[in-house]
Order: sequence, then C-alpha cells, then structure tokens
Amino acid sequence: MDFQALNASTLGDYLRTLPVITELLGDMADLDIAEVGDGNLNYVYFVSSRANPDKGLVVKQALPYMRLVGEGWPLTRHRSDREAHALRRFGSLCPQHVPALLHFDSAQSLIVMQRLGEHLILRKGLVNGVIYPKLAEHLAGYLARTLFHGSDLYLSADAKKQAVASTTNSELCKITEDLVLTNPFEDHPNNVYNPALPRGTVARLHHNPALRVAAAQMKWAFMNQAETLLHGDLHTGSVMVNQRDTYVIDPEFACYGPMGFDIGLLLANFATAYLSQDWHRAQAGTDPAPYQAWLSEQISQLWRGFSQEFLALWGAHDARSGGGFMGAARDADSLAQFRASFMQHIFSDALGFAGCELIRRTLGLAKVAEIANIPDDAARAVFDMRALSLGEALLLQRHQITDMDQVLRLLRNTRMPPP
Amino acid sequence: MDFQALNASTLGDYLRTLPVITELLGDMADLDIAEVGDGNLNYVYFVSSRANPDKGLVVKQALPYMRLVGEGWPLTRHRSDREAHALRRFGSLCPQHVPALLHFDSAQSLIVMQRLGEHLILRKGLVNGVIYPKLAEHLAGYLARTLFHGSDLYLSADAKKQAVASTTNSELCKITEDLVLTNPFEDHPNNVYNPALPRGTVARLHHNPALRVAAAQMKWAFMNQAETLLHGDLHTGSVMVNQRDTYVIDPEFACYGPMGFDIGLLLANFATAYLSQDWHRAQAGTDPAPYQAWLSEQISQLWRGFSQEFLALWGAHDARSGGGFMGAARDADSLAQFRASFMQHIFSDALGFAGCELIRRTLGLAKVAEIANIPDDAARAVFDMRALSLGEALLLQRHQITDMDQVLRLLRNTRMPPP
Repeated sequence: MDFQALNASTLGDYLRTLPVITELLGDMADLDIAEVGDGNLNYVYFVSSRANPDKGLVVKQALPYMRLVGEGWPLTRHRSDREAHALRRFGSLCPQHVPALLHFDSAQSLIVMQRLGEHLILRKGLVNGVIYPKLAEHLAGYLARTLFHGSDLYLSADAKKQAVASTTNSELCKITEDLVLTNPFEDHPNNVYNPALPRGTVARLHHNPALRVAAAQMKWAFMNQAETLLHGDLHTGSVMVNQRDTYVIDPEFACYGPMGFDIGLLLANFATAYLSQDWHRAQAGTDPAPYQAWLSEQISQLWRGFSQEFLALWGAHDARSGGGFMGAARDADSLAQFRASFMQHIFSDALGFAGCELIRRTLGLAKVAEIANIPDDAARAVFDMRALSLGEALLLQRHQITDMDQVLRLLRNTRMPPP
Repeated sequence: MDFQALNASTLGDYLRTLPVITELLGDMADLDIAEVGDGNLNYVYFVSSRANPDKGLVVKQALPYMRLVGEGWPLTRHRSDREAHALRRFGSLCPQHVPALLHFDSAQSLIVMQRLGEHLILRKGLVNGVIYPKLAEHLAGYLARTLFHGSDLYLSADAKKQAVASTTNSELCKITEDLVLTNPFEDHPNNVYNPALPRGTVARLHHNPALRVAAAQMKWAFMNQAETLLHGDLHTGSVMVNQRDTYVIDPEFACYGPMGFDIGLLLANFATAYLSQDWHRAQAGTDPAPYQAWLSEQISQLWRGFSQEFLALWGAHDARSGGGFMGAARDADSLAQFRASFMQHIFSDALGFAGCELIRRTLGLAKVAEIANIPDDAARAVFDMRALSLGEALLLQRHQITDMDQVLRLLRNTRMPPP
C-alpha cells in the first residue's frame, strides 16, 4: 500500500487489517480514536475499543513534514524507521523502561506501541512538585544499559561499526546541530527569546569567544564522537512516570553520538525544573526548598547510579569475555585509571551538553514549559538569566568540574543575585 | 566471472580482455609481468608490453587472506573495494599526489593503476640520506586537502554521515586497533621485539598506568572520532618519491577516524628515520647531523605547511559558502579561537598517535626497516630504546606540547643518554 496520511477516521480501517491489533484490543467494531500528539514532529493517537476500554494502544505516524510547522518544513518519514529501530534496540536492553513496540509499518511510517495509560509526562510532574521514589534509579539504569551496550566497550569492533553505519539519522541530527548547538550561540533569525532579557546579556553571550568555542567543541563532539547509540532527545518531556514506573519514549532522534549527550540533556532539564520551583512553589504559596532538595538528590543519584551501573556492566562484561578494551593482559592499576578517566570524559561532555541545552532552551527556538509558562516577561527573565548563567558556567568549566556536588553548588548559587 | 586468484601467467589473458588496458599498453601480444609486492597484504605486479617497454602499469590483487601469513590469516577481499574508493576520492582531491586508478574490478578485487616507474619508496630514500626538495610541502598539501575535504568543515552534515556509513572498513581497522593500539602496550604473544632490550624496560612500559591509559585513549579516539576519511596507514613505506614528485600509495586501510592519525604516523616514521641516521651515517663513515637537520626541517615544515593550507582551505570554504561550522553570524575573535583550539586538537592527537606508532614499531609485530635492519641486537637496542622513550614522551605530554619545536627538542634529546 502506498503511503497514506491517516487520521482519526481512517486509522480504524487500517488497524482492523492487523491480526496482532485485533488480538490486543479484542472487539474492533467500535474503536475510540483520538489524536493527542503535542510534540513537534508527529501525529499520535490513543486507540481503544469501546467494548474493552481498559485495553488501549498508541499509534504514532510520521508525515513528510514537521507537524509543528506543516508542509513548509519538509522532513522525510525516515525518522519513523529510526524510532522503531531504537524502540526495539532500547527495549531489548531495558524492557522495563521502554514502551513495547507492537507493530511497525515502514511503508506507512507507522508505529503501534504499548499505551502508558497510568503514566504522565515527567516534566509536568516536576512542575507540580511530585516526588517519584524510583526516578533517579530508573533513569540511571536506563542510561547505563543503553549507553554501555551500544559502545566499543561491549560490541565487537565490527558490530559497532555496522551499527554506526546503519543508524545514520541525518535529518533529525541536523535539527540538533542547528537548533541546539549553533543558532542559540549566534544572532540568528531562528532564535526566539524573552523581550525582557537585557539585550546586553544576549549580545555578550553571542560575542564571548570562550563560550562560542566551547559550544563549537560540543557540536564537533556531537557530530564526530560516534561512541554509542543515543536516545538523542532525552529531556523530561521524553520520560513518562508514575510512582512505580519510568518509561523513556520518543527516540526518533536516536543516532550514534557522545556518551555524555543524553545525560547532559537530562541534567539540564532537571536544572530548569529546579530553578523554576522558585516561581511555581511561590505561586502555590509553599516553600520551594524541600522539592529543590529532592531534585538535587535526583541529580546526584542519577550520576552516581549511572556510574556505578555502567562500571558494573563494564567489569562484568570484561570478566565474561576474558578480555577488554585495553587488551587481555589486564593491569589492575591501568584499568582503574582508564575507567576513571573514561567516566570523567563522559562527565565533562555531559556538562558541556547540559550547558548547550540550558542556553538553547532560553535563547533558541524551543522552550521548556516550566519556565516558558511563567506569564510575566520580567518575572520570567529572572529565570532565563539563571538558566543562561548556569549554562555558561557548565560549558566553560566542564573540564575543571570533577563531581556532581560542584554542579549542585553552581545550581544553588545561580539563584543568588550576583554580588 | 567468479573470483580467480591470478598469477604472472594468467594475468595477461585477463588484461587482454580490457580495451582500456590495450589502449594504454599498445601491443598486448608479448607482456612482461612480474610479481613485485613486498607488502604484507596483497599481490602486486608490474606489467609492460615488450613492444613498448616505456609504458607500464601496476596491478594489485587482494586474495582472501593476508599475503604475509597465508591462508592461516583469512581476510576478506573487501579491502580492495576500500582501496579503490580511497584512490578515487584522494585522487580527485590531489591528483598530483595519488596514482591514477586505471581500472577496478570489484569481483576480482583487482586494481590497475598508474606505474610510478621513476619513483622510489620514501623509507628507502630516507635510510640512504637522500634529500627531496619538495617532500614536506607535498605531504603537507596532501594531508591538508584530504583531511579537510572529508570532514564536517567541508561536507554537508548529511554527506559526511553518508561518507562515514559507506566507508566502514572493519577488518583493516581491527589490525590497527589490535596491532598498533592494543597489543604493543600489553604482554601479548603477537609482540616481537629485540632480545637485547632490557626486560625491565618492557615490563615498565606494560605496567605504567599513565602510558596504558594514554594508549587506550588514543585507541578510543581512533575507533570513535569519525572526523575525516584517513589514509589509515601513512608511514614512509606508503609514499613514493623522486626529486620532483611525491605520491601516496596503498590506501586500503582508509576509514573515518581522527584528523591527527595520518599526521601522527608520518611524524613517527620521520622520527625513526632521524634516530636511525646515527647508525646509517656512521656505517657510511659520514656525519649524521646535516641529514638530521634536514629531517627536522621536514617535520617542522610538514606541520607548518599542513596548518597553513588547512586553515586556508577552511577560510576559503567559509567565505564561499557564507557560513561555517560556528554558524553564519561570524564573530572574528570566536572564529580565530575556535580555529586555534581545533589545530591544537589535531596536534595533540597527532602526537598521541605518533607515540603509539613509535612504541608499536618497537614492541609490536611490525618493524621499520631503518631500525630493524641494524644487524647487531645490542646496537639495535640503543635505537629501540630511543624510539620507546620518544614514543612514551609524546603520548604522555601530548596535551602539554603546543608546538613542533618542542617535539624536535624531545627528538634531539632522545639521542642523549639519560643524565
């Protein structure tokens, strides 16, 4: 069948042709189909049978353009193949944190997957001050398992190279390259920012050679360090949670890139959640400190848990294979020092990408809701300035900072007015 | 036609079926065919017509194993496709420094190319103390043009990613990964070294965590930094020269990798040429100093010429395109600082790979003739020690050394006995 852009009324007929879906939903006579997508790229439907409303699924279709902009921003449907591949790959590594892929039709660029009916987007939960007891542990586990198993530390050299070659995702990478890693650092028409931001602040960032060099180095790293298969867009809007579970969704940006990229994006989005609490809790008439303390602890635990699990996977794999990246004749001191330098390399890159993310979410095209929803320009500018200041510090000091406590100190100090 | 391993008697019949070859050689009735390969991997033939002996060509065929070892070391013929692709690509960028590809038959893994009848392998010329007036300028130009045009500084982001995906060369990369970047740094049965080398020296290198970490970092860079299409095996045995011309041959190891890799290998091989002059000139009863001064000047000029031409290509490309890696809104200071940091990144990597090459040519499987041909073990051990000492210094100090004069000082000091 030729490609056909489906809608809420034609999707039902399509689904009825699929035995696997009929088996899942039961009675297909009367389907409830609603388009619910609020992302920038694709159309997303919730589908359930009126006869069995407790059973549902999600359908995601990519059209040959960007949903947010329309046909004026063409985009091939290739992203759907990339997403299905990444769902399968990450799902095989972390089934407990990735929605199950139920059906993929490459010709229709259509993915049917498990519906997370009892889960909410993490960003919304964080704005509302909700505590998720397992969050950092789950995300650390997801990151350790996905980042380790795509790399040369685990795959054979040939399998890794084949994986790089077969996961090229130029179009969506270009969005990251331009909108995250280039335009926000220059005076560019794609940028959109708060009119209450002092002009001098923006101009100073755009003409700060140290900052622009750091951003260009992170862009070079993103485009050249093919270290592992990344999610590629791991902000808090790509995570769905409840008190028990954590799921990572929407991996259409998946590509080979630096180990620190996913970690850095997540870190930056935890930081904006933290900073914006000063406004959101004040609105609710409560003290932001307790929730900020919990968010700080999540950031600490995320890195600590990731490091521990990543190193455990590495050690176990080397023990099993009897070899390792440094060769078969393992020298304990050399190995320990290489592992330490490797973790610092991931950490520095993560801080650099976190810095880029904080700046692009302030000066670039796309915003984070927790700050963008602050209605008053002047009030919002306070948080914009804090995000910029933290982003700049992380980018410039990424090689000097050696542990997450220093990051948390920077985050806390960002809230103080300059002396 | 199914694959057939040709030999000096069957190759003639094969070549007679090719109109392009008949046109080149003229009379095909009586061909002079001699197998002349002295490399590790492939068979190489010189072919000429007895009627026109001044016209000749080179035929190179890859068999499904490594020539040096035989069928005990199987190797797919894929390397021939990689070599033909690289000859075309590098030839289009530097026709004056790459032998012309006259015919390629993928099914037979057979390449017919321009014969460099008036040129000699550079390594032999350097052992003999021959001065090539244009050498550094030519090699600098070759490196600048090939390394620049394969990178994200020149190609569109998509074209670059497609180039990475289509040039995967796992088998030959694995040889570099194992024999250059792993085994020499551990006690491994693949290693072969001078019995007169003090055991303690070798053991100390194999248990020096700083050195092993540095080597592992270079290996990680080689496997993960897909910066540009490299030659991949650019030692002085891969260069053919005379007083006028410089040609770079044998790019079957071509793959995407770090900008500094080809430069580093070349640098290390100039260094072994320099060090071994103390022996070769003494044998000839002459002073090594003048030729060592010329070699030092080649090393200086190589980096200076490369930097200048690379930066000129970069500047001209950005001016033509009106954009650049840092974006369209170019800030002169930021751009200058990014370019400086970029060149230092290439330089550090080059020193690191030079260090690996020096150590692997001493402790690893393959040797350089200028040192390996010193017949007396004890006399040779002096030069082995110097190569190891320089290699170690380059690897450990690669981030601190900021210009080639420092490298040349290290090279000179390597000749002095320790104080």
